[in-house]
Amino acid sequence: MGYPQIMPSKPHQPATFTSGGELDLLARIRARARRGRKGAVRLGIGDDCALLRLAPDEELALTTDLSISGRHFRLAWHPPESIGHRTLARGLSDLAAMGARPIAAFLSLGLPRELATSARGKKSWLDRFLDGFLSLADAYETPLAGGDLAESDFAVADIVLTGAVQHGKALLRSGAHPGDLLYVTGSLGGAAAALAQIKTLDAALKRTYARRDDMERLRIPRRLAETLRPHLFPQPRIAQGIWLAKRSLASAAVDISDGLSTDLAHLCQESNVAAVIDAAALPVHHSANLRQALHGGEDYELLFTAPATARLPGAIEGVAVTRIGRLSRRRAGMPVVAINTSPGRKPLTAQGWQHFS
Amino acid sequence: MGYPQIMPSKPHQPATFTSGGELDLLARIRARARRGRKGAVRLGIGDDCALLRLAPDEELALTTDLSISGRHFRLAWHPPESIGHRTLARGLSDLAAMGARPIAAFLSLGLPRELATSARGKKSWLDRFLDGFLSLADAYETPLAGGDLAESDFAVADIVLTGAVQHGKALLRSGAHPGDLLYVTGSLGGAAAALAQIKTLDAALKRTYARRDDMERLRIPRRLAETLRPHLFPQPRIAQGIWLAKRSLASAAVDISDGLSTDLAHLCQESNVAAVIDAAALPVHHSANLRQALHGGEDYELLFTAPATARLPGAIEGVAVTRIGRLSRRRAGMPVVAINTSPGRKPLTAQGWQHFS
Repeated sequence: MGYPQIMPSKPHQPATFTSGGELDLLARIRARARRGRKGAVRLGIGDDCALLRLAPDEELALTTDLSISGRHFRLAWHPPESIGHRTLARGLSDLAAMGARPIAAFLSLGLPRELATSARGKKSWLDRFLDGFLSLADAYETPLAGGDLAESDFAVADIVLTGAVQHGKALLRSGAHPGDLLYVTGSLGGAAAALAQIKTLDAALKRTYARRDDMERLRIPRRLAETLRPHLFPQPRIAQGIWLAKRSLASAAVDISDGLSTDLAHLCQESNVAAVIDAAALPVHHSANLRQALHGGEDYELLFTAPATARLPGAIEGVAVTRIGRLSRRRAGMPVVAINTSPGRKPLTAQGWQHFS
Repeated sequence: MGYPQIMPSKPHQPATFTSGGELDLLARIRARARRGRKGAVRLGIGDDCALLRLAPDEELALTTDLSISGRHFRLAWHPPESIGHRTLARGLSDLAAMGARPIAAFLSLGLPRELATSARGKKSWLDRFLDGFLSLADAYETPLAGGDLAESDFAVADIVLTGAVQHGKALLRSGAHPGDLLYVTGSLGGAAAALAQIKTLDAALKRTYARRDDMERLRIPRRLAETLRPHLFPQPRIAQGIWLAKRSLASAAVDISDGLSTDLAHLCQESNVAAVIDAAALPVHHSANLRQALHGGEDYELLFTAPATARLPGAIEGVAVTRIGRLSRRRAGMPVVAINTSPGRKPLTAQGWQHFS
């Protein structure tokens, strides 16, 4: 583990080896990480490993997500606070999809030197990244318990989230049955609609200036801040996942990170079922169109299934729950996922992002 | 978690969404990861999170280490098998330093397309990376239980290792006391001596050819394979860490990843003690010099302390244990780490690598 190797654990003791670049950075990260609730973290930043303790009836849920500059975010498009927020939100959303309570986050960061250093009294990119990261971590009571930090020619962040869930209560992708009903939290397509707006802003700027440097960031007009929020600052559905897992109401769940069409296909694959969704029932975000709601990724809503006999409320912990379709047996020659629209039923092809294709 | 989002968990079911680049890669990784012992892994690759289960008297140890092309390895210097091996070895060594038994590894990989694809029936770089990674994983009974995979302009690997250790038995950096004796496993400096040889080989090649492309790899002469082994294929001291933790013999421990001078300074910092080592007692690797043994990193031996009353054997699980010094109270104006050489005692300055400095 990187932080531990180089960080003094007792800041009241005088440091004896030189406090230079990395040490300073790590001391700052450590001081800020200290704010969170410790809970299950018995030993955080400061040793070769962190130590986590679970209750005897709990399992540990663990997920990792890699975010790479130019692939998962753009330094020119995303404010640093958004990149920090999104890095953590991706991991928290995976915990939500299992119905797990967050225990601790671990952050591995590779950064170009200029992003880690501050100029003329202004906050550095890293400080602003941490602002976004730690304010979401605070909101979800998730302490930063370790990670690694390295200088790099490009920006890369790998997030590890750990959570706790009672034995046998985790929401799996593989638990759905034919006849189960299909539900989704919140609304869909808002993140894709916001991303489309950002692309339009960028294209307009590119027409104005011949060449924009990647480090010269898009200025987002204040009037757009709210519209862009679903993409820049998505909210993981931790409380809703925990609510469902505790009551054993959902038969299966997945988070919508790659888009409804893609993530529903994953759930059907894992549970060996087919699904039909109703276009008219979809909770399309007010700024989005149907295509964005079906295929746009990064909404981080929960897609879950429940037996037809289960009574689901209209909202869980303040977030709307909408029934959007039904599962059936899988049949040869029939599409795994289909959609009912006004002209009739048609197959719905997964159109999510795939690397190396 | 990346693998889960895109991988069918039941390979006997026909895949319904197109099997293209990333899916194929992940299916191959998943098939190969299946080989390991499952143990505490209740749910591996195939869902939003992996699920791990511990015994009621165990804590989870967790560490992450980022490896970046051009910083932690060079595509031109290191055979892919070595990069896979070293990536995992870094994480395993952190577990060893806590006295933890490995439970599961998680691997986040960002790779340029050409490293993930194979040409003319030859193994791809990724396949050879996995050969090195999984053969070490097999040797240490560590299943690959998840991770993430993304296309990237550069090669980056983040490794997460989880392990189990009995409540209160973990070896911490902070447990050492004045008067404790200082021990090290194996020998020191072998990795640094090997790295120096690799640099010499590379310089000779550069003199022959005006410019060597990063992708055109150094051919390592067979006669050097054994000499270079400490750098290319280091062995983490898992069995020795577990042995020490079980018997509560060690008061503190750290792995030597940044070099003895640096890692000993970390241990002294965390325990608030000073140390004096005896140059004549150091188990210098037969191919190394004293400087390499003191400051060369990546040996991945264990540095540990034990009360003077503790009886340590000359070897633990087949690896030599050498007493190299003693701890004392910290005093203002005195060096935290000093070394006794034939001309007398002098301060030993930490000379390990620091990013951003």
